[in-house]
Amino acid sequence: MDPILIPNVSIDCVVFGFDMQDLKVLLVDRDIEHNGVLHHDRKLPGDLIRKDEELDSAACRILHDLSGLQNLYLNQFGSFGGVNRLKSKERDLIWLKQIDHPEERVITIAYYTLINLTSAKEEYILRSNAKWTSLDSLGELAFDHAEIITKAYSMMKQNFKVNPIAFELLPDKFTLSQLQKIYEVVLKTQYDKRNFRKKISQISCIVPINEKQTNVAHKPARLYMFSKDIYEKTRKDNFDFTV
Amino acid sequence: MDPILIPNVSIDCVVFGFDMQDLKVLLVDRDIEHNGVLHHDRKLPGDLIRKDEELDSAACRILHDLSGLQNLYLNQFGSFGGVNRLKSKERDLIWLKQIDHPEERVITIAYYTLINLTSAKEEYILRSNAKWTSLDSLGELAFDHAEIITKAYSMMKQNFKVNPIAFELLPDKFTLSQLQKIYEVVLKTQYDKRNFRKKISQISCIVPINEKQTNVAHKPARLYMFSKDIYEKTRKDNFDFTV
Repeated sequence: MDPILIPNVSIDCVVFGFDMQDLKVLLVDRDIEHNGVLHHDRKLPGDLIRKDEELDSAACRILHDLSGLQNLYLNQFGSFGGVNRLKSKERDLIWLKQIDHPEERVITIAYYTLINLTSAKEEYILRSNAKWTSLDSLGELAFDHAEIITKAYSMMKQNFKVNPIAFELLPDKFTLSQLQKIYEVVLKTQYDKRNFRKKISQISCIVPINEKQTNVAHKPARLYMFSKDIYEKTRKDNFDFTV
Repeated sequence: MDPILIPNVSIDCVVFGFDMQDLKVLLVDRDIEHNGVLHHDRKLPGDLIRKDEELDSAACRILHDLSGLQNLYLNQFGSFGGVNRLKSKERDLIWLKQIDHPEERVITIAYYTLINLTSAKEEYILRSNAKWTSLDSLGELAFDHAEIITKAYSMMKQNFKVNPIAFELLPDKFTLSQLQKIYEVVLKTQYDKRNFRKKISQISCIVPINEKQTNVAHKPARLYMFSKDIYEKTRKDNFDFTV
């Protein structure tokens, strides 16, 4: 039996991934045929919530169906309920006719999550027609999804400075250059290497380990890990990352 | 004609006020009679949203109906949709029978707003059975409203450090002691007076004006204003208030 859905409330997920160069967003392909012409754009992964489903569980279900991944970092960052958010573009109206309640007003609760794209884990093989797209060239998007992604990025940036979420985008073991890169890409800034390292050396939860990079052409760099234990026990109130 | 409501989506508002001593929350009295016994508790101001109403507009309507105030600072900080959030207490179930769709699952989108209680403006006279209650002694609350207030306070605290929202809780012209007090109360900390003033003197959008306090028993202190213009033009990325 199909699950009972709540017609007015959906969940949308902004999945950010970092491949050591670019910040990317996971988008689902959408093809719409109208008067014999095929129109292509993309949408965020999302779904209506089910009658007996917690909000976080719905986000987890959507992400798991999409990627096979579980236990992802989740941040519920806003709700989007513009009266005409689903009706402002003709192709959205055509697409909506395929679903059960095309006339309903849908308010969406949006989450962002962070994934390290460099891990060669098999689970990262995407199960659906979803693709990683650079945040700087998203192309045409469905509904108000461009607005949702803009807000997600803005909230993520703010969070980046006060909470240790950068490490969700990095492999477990990382170099200081990689750490600097993720801060530069997300905050759209440049750091002086020496100042950056001086600042990092004062953060006790970023721990040098007795290992170096392997399989690199250049001189292998020392690896570091983020210790959640030490972070929990040493932070005053927030992670203060203001280089 | 009564407006058409969306049965599954409500707005709740956490209204924080500062009276120069305490951080307070505006709560609405709720009386529930069950088996001849009158039970009293409090709830957040809130309502279902209307079919043609934007989310922010619904929050404005609720706040205006309650206080007569318009153009308040609004921050949408989270959605709360626990499957049993309305059903875990007997008195909530009794209260729900008074409304139209007692069995519906309601997901609420929560906003916080900030009000300066010391202004002797007539508009602050509350129109309904709402009362200012100290954040530290809220008493029994309806539904999951204690959880919503806890989250609102946590998000407001975080925002307090990176955006100039403190000034929403102060009168237009304030003393440095009042500014220090609001930071101490909200962040639950104590600042050294000299260090605090040194830090403030480096923030160019907090401007000394050529006026002093009046009607005070002690030596009148100089007044300051927050300049939004200067803030917009001088901030790098965020208001960095980490004393």
